[in-house]
Amino acid sequence: MIETPSLVDQYCHGVLRTELGLGTFEAQLARTEGPPAAGTTLFDTQTGFAVRRWCPPLLGLEPHCPPARYLARRRELGVLEAGRRLLRGSGITTYLVDTGLPGDLTGPTELASAGGADAHEIVRLEQLAEQVADTSGTVESFLANLAESVHAAAAHAVAFTSVAGLGHGLAFAPEPPEPGEVRGAAGRWLAGRRVGGPLTDPVLIRHLLWIAVASGRPLQLHAGLGEPGTRIDRTDPVLLTDFVRATAGLGTDLILLHGYPYHRHAAHLAGVFPHVYADSGAALVRTGARAATVLAEILELAPFGKILFSTGAHALPELHVVGARLFREALGRVLGTWVAEGAWSLEDAQRVARMVAADNARRVYGLG
Amino acid sequence: MIETPSLVDQYCHGVLRTELGLGTFEAQLARTEGPPAAGTTLFDTQTGFAVRRWCPPLLGLEPHCPPARYLARRRELGVLEAGRRLLRGSGITTYLVDTGLPGDLTGPTELASAGGADAHEIVRLEQLAEQVADTSGTVESFLANLAESVHAAAAHAVAFTSVAGLGHGLAFAPEPPEPGEVRGAAGRWLAGRRVGGPLTDPVLIRHLLWIAVASGRPLQLHAGLGEPGTRIDRTDPVLLTDFVRATAGLGTDLILLHGYPYHRHAAHLAGVFPHVYADSGAALVRTGARAATVLAEILELAPFGKILFSTGAHALPELHVVGARLFREALGRVLGTWVAEGAWSLEDAQRVARMVAADNARRVYGLG
Amino acid sequence: MIETPSLVDQYCHGVLRTELGLGTFEAQLARTEGPPAAGTTLFDTQTGFAVRRWCPPLLGLEPHCPPARYLARRRELGVLEAGRRLLRGSGITTYLVDTGLPGDLTGPTELASAGGADAHEIVRLEQLAEQVADTSGTVESFLANLAESVHAAAAHAVAFTSVAGLGHGLAFAPEPPEPGEVRGAAGRWLAGRRVGGPLTDPVLIRHLLWIAVASGRPLQLHAGLGEPGTRIDRTDPVLLTDFVRATAGLGTDLILLHGYPYHRHAAHLAGVFPHVYADSGAALVRTGARAATVLAEILELAPFGKILFSTGAHALPELHVVGARLFREALGRVLGTWVAEGAWSLEDAQRVARMVAADNARRVYGLG
Repeated sequence: MIETPSLVDQYCHGVLRTELGLGTFEAQLARTEGPPAAGTTLFDTQTGFAVRRWCPPLLGLEPHCPPARYLARRRELGVLEAGRRLLRGSGITTYLVDTGLPGDLTGPTELASAGGADAHEIVRLEQLAEQVADTSGTVESFLANLAESVHAAAAHAVAFTSVAGLGHGLAFAPEPPEPGEVRGAAGRWLAGRRVGGPLTDPVLIRHLLWIAVASGRPLQLHAGLGEPGTRIDRTDPVLLTDFVRATAGLGTDLILLHGYPYHRHAAHLAGVFPHVYADSGAALVRTGARAATVLAEILELAPFGKILFSTGAHALPELHVVGARLFREALGRVLGTWVAEGAWSLEDAQRVARMVAADNARRVYGLG
Repeated sequence: MIETPSLVDQYCHGVLRTELGLGTFEAQLARTEGPPAAGTTLFDTQTGFAVRRWCPPLLGLEPHCPPARYLARRRELGVLEAGRRLLRGSGITTYLVDTGLPGDLTGPTELASAGGADAHEIVRLEQLAEQVADTSGTVESFLANLAESVHAAAAHAVAFTSVAGLGHGLAFAPEPPEPGEVRGAAGRWLAGRRVGGPLTDPVLIRHLLWIAVASGRPLQLHAGLGEPGTRIDRTDPVLLTDFVRATAGLGTDLILLHGYPYHRHAAHLAGVFPHVYADSGAALVRTGARAATVLAEILELAPFGKILFSTGAHALPELHVVGARLFREALGRVLGTWVAEGAWSLEDAQRVARMVAADNARRVYGLG
Repeated sequence: MIETPSLVDQYCHGVLRTELGLGTFEAQLARTEGPPAAGTTLFDTQTGFAVRRWCPPLLGLEPHCPPARYLARRRELGVLEAGRRLLRGSGITTYLVDTGLPGDLTGPTELASAGGADAHEIVRLEQLAEQVADTSGTVESFLANLAESVHAAAAHAVAFTSVAGLGHGLAFAPEPPEPGEVRGAAGRWLAGRRVGGPLTDPVLIRHLLWIAVASGRPLQLHAGLGEPGTRIDRTDPVLLTDFVRATAGLGTDLILLHGYPYHRHAAHLAGVFPHVYADSGAALVRTGARAATVLAEILELAPFGKILFSTGAHALPELHVVGARLFREALGRVLGTWVAEGAWSLEDAQRVARMVAADNARRVYGLG
């Protein structure tokens, strides 16, 4: 009844090119600080159960078959063929791919080809700055090259992304840092840095965000659940409110990724600020059988033109599958229930489904 | 099965007396900082969909008809007649009206007459202080007149309300400010102020709250979602805990308005403190098809004698309709489900429904 | 379909040995700061309604009978016989009992005997320290006796518990305090203290937590809703993140009790850190008819091997009944729905139910 013929995954990563065993596969099912506790397994999570529900049938097995059997079949097909079947079974028609994570991951072109879909690149600002630092001799050349690199990337990238908030929290000073501050921070960073050293200086990260804002390309900011090493209350998207206000009216859209467990807050910001959008994606992969409820919570305050689908998938094509299938099923169930109750008309529900699944992303990212 | 023959709307505003076009109507559907993003409309929100569900039939149209058609019919009837039909269709039997917002809005008497209902005035403390400042020559006369005005208002107003928390946040110092502090703050405010200038000084606002507490009239405090310009984590009602503790046992009730997305926190305070009440209203207008869930979340911790219905409606009689209909339907569905599951008895459910819809408000506000 | 033949209540207290009247019974239904507001009763809460649902049939009455009738029947049977029938009707097979609260409460052995179940003791660290202070003459002997007492308790206690966060909040310094700091704090506390005086010094509490961590016994930390006198945002379990990180890899498990309304945050920590577990208990007693939803929210992020059942019950055997029955019903409904929807297999659901109800607790606490 509620159909979504196109699915634009507005934020994901590539998939691993290497064969995986039970343990290496399991390690990709969650972001943890340490191995599973004795007597437990990450397969016993919502993500693990969702993988076992949706993926075995795409490889010719029964849903919910044991992990070991699934992994054996995956190896039997080979990582390429299994990935091809999985990605093509996800229903995703366009991938926007953050290429900024390390690992032997497929790039956008390879992901598109495997998945029989389109793909575009999202440039991760921190990685860009690190590459510029690797090849710049002085503070002046670093800063000039940085501005030029962001400008150049804006010509081909569909969006920028930053994990600005995950290190120091999202409550950073909202205004651009002063040029003197930036030069000082750049000098200290470059002096203390070896090739490949990560960018964590908060002044340089703010500088980078503001260069990106000036480029006009949509800027995706990570919020809520993220990488290990953080404290999640520091990634509550409401902490971005002042930065959001400072960037209003400049013509650049901000997309709040993830959000959960603060997704109602992200939805609130998307409702108040014209240039803010809320992601309805990665949270579903993490919450599995609860996806319909989490999606419904986002649909409380966020205007329906301001919600974007993503999977947030990384490394395993299974996660692209799970993200897409959970989203489609959750959206169909939530909107279908509202239609059945008379709260929404069927026509409106179908229109909103197409908006969230694909049309909003096409408009925001200027896709064909 | 679960019926609410009376509905006391414990917090709302008047309705606009002017005719509205599509754009001016749309602008009242949400509180935003800026116009809708290109390619989006505020009609595509839970509030917009709820208006299109409940209001067209009251004006003789099909539910979910297009906004333009609804607005044409509204203009055809005229703002007075449309307002009359809508308000009478809301089911609200008593309105408590905050008269402190600007605009060409109907007052309590006019709202009562249009809606075929009773109405009482809620006095907004900040506005009262501004009016006193407009007519007081010295700090001493201002402070004396302020105390007298609050005292006089307490004789006719059904409650006081304050947006104390929306400017500086709800984490203000819980005790009354010292007289010297108050005189200093009043002197600075009056010296720098033109007629009509808004009260934002935190010391004077605390002083005002404490005068109101001394009056014995119920005091309504805004929390959670509010006006643009705020950061919502600063309006989390738990930040009021120390003020709540400081005012315990003085004989004045505190009502936490809105609350969402921190409505579980407001419900918690209503459960712990005898003089605290939780609003179950405005959040429903904002969350539309999700109203039953949001209401159920309030019903987790708040004792059933401590929950009060409101619409929080402002400017559009459609919002009074939506607030009342969503509440009634949500309450019926939530309590009805619990009865069907055997968790509650039908008799208890009917009693609780009458309490939340009207009886609690009658007791707290001393209505006839 | 989803059955839980064993129930290990991983955190509860004993029951009162004294007969109760309507008022003294009502006072145990919630943790409030002050008596119920005029015109309200604590029976009109989710806890009150849940007691009236589940308990009257165990004493031969109709569900939902009036409180006065229930109390009369309870007195007719006598507190011992009523307690016996209630506890045996709860379905709990093992009680882990925090013996650290004052009052005429049954200990583990008596609770086990009344309930036809097993019981083990949880030692409350603050109470242990107070007992040691009562009998130690000098700072040196106090500190030596404290370490020895914790060590000795670890030999028979099934776990330690602490309300460390409820006084000063959970954002305490994560590392162990320096020996000099500890000696200073102990000196000040002992000098100013009378026999029985409570431990509230934050340095000594941190010292105590670290002694307990060194013992290897599981350590239960209170978070979220707790005793009157707190401000709940200070008990958000995410504030423990740095302490959790500091204790990782030491071989001691941390159990986050209660959690609600921050239970999604507790579940997140259980997902990220191998040694952290989330309680799925006390929140259900407080939220009654909403138990299934609250439980489902915990099941979003927490791995299924990291969730532990409890009742958190105190003083009234009715609360043990309600905690156990709500949990069983909620678990059956949540997992049963996921099976019906095809999201989970029946076999997995049955396995997870047994894990959360009993098997996880058996593994974590080393029960037979």
